[in-house]
Amino acid sequence: MAVWPLARFPAREVMRGSGVNIAIDRQSDVPLYQQIVRQIRQLITSGSLTGGFRLPPERRLAQTLGVNRSTILNAYRELKANGWLEARVGRGTSVVPAAARRTDPHHERTDGQEIGWRQLFRERFVGSEDAVLRDLLGLSEREDTIPLAMGLPAPDHLPLDTYAELMSEVITDLGPRSLLHSPTEGVTSLREALCEWAAEREIPCEVTEVQVVSGSQQGLDMAARVFLDPGDVVVVEEPTYIGALQTFRDAGARLIGVPTDAHGMRTDLLEAILQRRRPKFIYTLPTFQNPSGVVMPLERRRHLLELAGRYQVPVLEDDPYADLRYDGEPLPALKALDSDNLVLYLSTISKVLFPGLRLGWLIAPPSVRQQFTLVKQGMDLHSSTPGQFLLERYLRRGFHREYLASIRREYECRRDVMHRALSRQDIPGLSWNRPSGGFYFWCALPEGTDRARLLARSAEEGVSFLPGWACFVQDPGRSHIRLNFAYPGVEQIEVGVARLLKAVRYAVRSRQRASPATTSTPPVV
Amino acid sequence: MAVWPLARFPAREVMRGSGVNIAIDRQSDVPLYQQIVRQIRQLITSGSLTGGFRLPPERRLAQTLGVNRSTILNAYRELKANGWLEARVGRGTSVVPAAARRTDPHHERTDGQEIGWRQLFRERFVGSEDAVLRDLLGLSEREDTIPLAMGLPAPDHLPLDTYAELMSEVITDLGPRSLLHSPTEGVTSLREALCEWAAEREIPCEVTEVQVVSGSQQGLDMAARVFLDPGDVVVVEEPTYIGALQTFRDAGARLIGVPTDAHGMRTDLLEAILQRRRPKFIYTLPTFQNPSGVVMPLERRRHLLELAGRYQVPVLEDDPYADLRYDGEPLPALKALDSDNLVLYLSTISKVLFPGLRLGWLIAPPSVRQQFTLVKQGMDLHSSTPGQFLLERYLRRGFHREYLASIRREYECRRDVMHRALSRQDIPGLSWNRPSGGFYFWCALPEGTDRARLLARSAEEGVSFLPGWACFVQDPGRSHIRLNFAYPGVEQIEVGVARLLKAVRYAVRSRQRASPATTSTPPVV
Repeated sequence: MAVWPLARFPAREVMRGSGVNIAIDRQSDVPLYQQIVRQIRQLITSGSLTGGFRLPPERRLAQTLGVNRSTILNAYRELKANGWLEARVGRGTSVVPAAARRTDPHHERTDGQEIGWRQLFRERFVGSEDAVLRDLLGLSEREDTIPLAMGLPAPDHLPLDTYAELMSEVITDLGPRSLLHSPTEGVTSLREALCEWAAEREIPCEVTEVQVVSGSQQGLDMAARVFLDPGDVVVVEEPTYIGALQTFRDAGARLIGVPTDAHGMRTDLLEAILQRRRPKFIYTLPTFQNPSGVVMPLERRRHLLELAGRYQVPVLEDDPYADLRYDGEPLPALKALDSDNLVLYLSTISKVLFPGLRLGWLIAPPSVRQQFTLVKQGMDLHSSTPGQFLLERYLRRGFHREYLASIRREYECRRDVMHRALSRQDIPGLSWNRPSGGFYFWCALPEGTDRARLLARSAEEGVSFLPGWACFVQDPGRSHIRLNFAYPGVEQIEVGVARLLKAVRYAVRSRQRASPATTSTPPVV
Repeated sequence: MAVWPLARFPAREVMRGSGVNIAIDRQSDVPLYQQIVRQIRQLITSGSLTGGFRLPPERRLAQTLGVNRSTILNAYRELKANGWLEARVGRGTSVVPAAARRTDPHHERTDGQEIGWRQLFRERFVGSEDAVLRDLLGLSEREDTIPLAMGLPAPDHLPLDTYAELMSEVITDLGPRSLLHSPTEGVTSLREALCEWAAEREIPCEVTEVQVVSGSQQGLDMAARVFLDPGDVVVVEEPTYIGALQTFRDAGARLIGVPTDAHGMRTDLLEAILQRRRPKFIYTLPTFQNPSGVVMPLERRRHLLELAGRYQVPVLEDDPYADLRYDGEPLPALKALDSDNLVLYLSTISKVLFPGLRLGWLIAPPSVRQQFTLVKQGMDLHSSTPGQFLLERYLRRGFHREYLASIRREYECRRDVMHRALSRQDIPGLSWNRPSGGFYFWCALPEGTDRARLLARSAEEGVSFLPGWACFVQDPGRSHIRLNFAYPGVEQIEVGVARLLKAVRYAVRSRQRASPATTSTPPVV
């Protein structure tokens, strides 16, 4: 099973595929391909599948079960390796007749079951917490699914030619240096270019304050490593970026959520938290927030910084979308207003250029930047050398400014298309923002929408979204979903939203038909 | 200060540079550039440097102090930003006259001193432990220094044209997919190519067992995250890879060293350790070990696996040099002999191709591989997408096999040159191995060599090496140094070894002239 960045759906599905009954349990710790291996093996040993039985082609079974093709590939491969299945050109995959079967179970790879791997894993076991945080893209990978889920830029507009040209230029100009090790802080000339980038946004920045990171996810992870001991408190907005929740939780942090409204973090509620708890830092996405799309106004920015200064709590400002404004005037970043030098500023090229390059940057006071550097040295020595040289030239030559101007117009158009598509419906209780920048519509679903049915029906209809309830420290009760309008094309947006609304209608109706939910707490015995 | 991968020298140096007296304390927690800033500021406020005084050019001061040019650059930049120095084209950098100086100290960036950053860093504070582990390359960066220190391949033989060609091919063939996100486990086609790579080395491997990592340093860090709680025991060879010591220590592990001899880990001493302690895993580099260059023979490999099986302790096999054998027949990797499925296998392209790409791979039973994937998701989502597609093609098209054949001949020649250069000396007590593969000579220095003098004199002579005493869990008393023969060219090797031997002679003689060392333990009061 390909574990893609972010979230798989927590649903138990039983599906019928070409005569093979296989139940997929996505909540289980057993990998999907292993679940399939075990069940096919069981079907063979029980005699349900007999020698010569032809299994469905990998692609078809994958579609039927709603899993990646590689999952089926892996399952078939293991069953072949262990002598249960065989493949012949032109005949597909079939069950090996019992007489021809290797029967010694000791020859079977048992995936580490001899040794108690689980007892060797560390106590704060990663796999235990984030079933929701896995494999969101399992669905998005399916060709018949319209992906509104992921936080990706438009693939059809990426400046690929510029990339190819600059890359061969870098190799020619710099020779071996472009492919050898580079400093842990980042290539110096890129750090200088990033200072210029920051200066254009009125963020004061010296080269010594810049740390290049392998995407902003690594920046978050480094922040956790520099600051967090288990039990430390971190303040986050609710909702917030799902990957940050995962990383801070994984570091053993206790998360305190500050509610948000249409203007972002409710800073009026922040002071009480800072008084009672002593957080290591406040994590915020003030501009075109993920997932809600909202922008924190100037007064709240000032208030947040004032509180941070008064209580001497650093602010980790995550700012990947700032350059993607479609309406109105830009607001200064928190870092640009930061007279107390309390803000750690994180940004990335993943939302405006090439997410696959894994490049971002952190701006922090030198003594903190130095800690990030030491931590990064133990993590991966440094980020990709050729990618850094490429990004430097891309920024310096003005390609970035040029590309931003054109992609903003494109995204503005896509946003308006999604807004119109959502407006063309009549579902009472469905509401959404119309974001002035960034990637996301944040839709509040009608009260009583059945989440499980919505997920299942959306998968059937062929549309994916980010379940908003995964973006909270604690489930808020009310259900939201996040829709990306930047990645899909105009036609995909229209069809995708239509499919989604169909699924929502179904999930609302079905809940209303069901008897009203009675809540009761079973005794824990 | 550029923090390069690995090790700076622990030495206190006071140097005289063009009328500016600056003391560099490499043991200090204060960054080098900050030390320089403070001293220059102090020289100005005390009146030792008056308005108009012209400071030495950056490059010259850097050379005099033995620091990176960027350190001086950063120091001058900060002093300029704060109004102490000014630069004019053609006139260099000079002290701003007192009358023209901005005097408000509040305008000065104080590097986060207003807020007690240190109290906010986590308890297992990274900066506190690894003064030795920083900035080894400070010296190597100097143009007049011959770098025998780093673990790098030959820069003059890298297949740059192949890289440039394959990269533009990848972009053309795959389009946006080559620069978008890719699965956390790694690009599937690369994982398949790596299975073929493994199969050629008789390492059994399924695609589901492969995890792509951003260099083997990340693989080590991921192993620490999957397995280690603070206080857990890890068994390592002594000496071992310095970056592994750093990473495991940073995870809070207690390290137990197993002594080595000319045949690698003394497995006869391992059983007692496994009986008394319950390590989470055994970390070993069985083939062309780093730093010692030795190869563990087949019987010891079997013995190690037998003990691991008996005590159910996983083995983390780090195998970056296996393809770089110059004499004799290849031995199977531990992973190839691993009937109990206890070995986690780690390798990388950094030693045989492009270290700057940051690509390696881990082969582990699927249930363990899955843990690595979950951990990696929180660390950086995935490794560079274009680099993975490039590596896949590089492996599949046979470029790798071809390049290995030619680079092996080159390295064999360089090894022999270094061996001859070392043999042309008459220092009693100096001995070394002649490695049959890999990158390193491991030289035992004469008893009583003065380490501090050796480091200082080598810097003066213009040659760098890895101080072997940093590669042990506990300082072994006897002094070794590690010399890389793969990175420098033939002439550099000859000049570099000559310089080094001069420094060794000096460090031996000076110790012998001094009165015999009396050891005594002062009472702790």
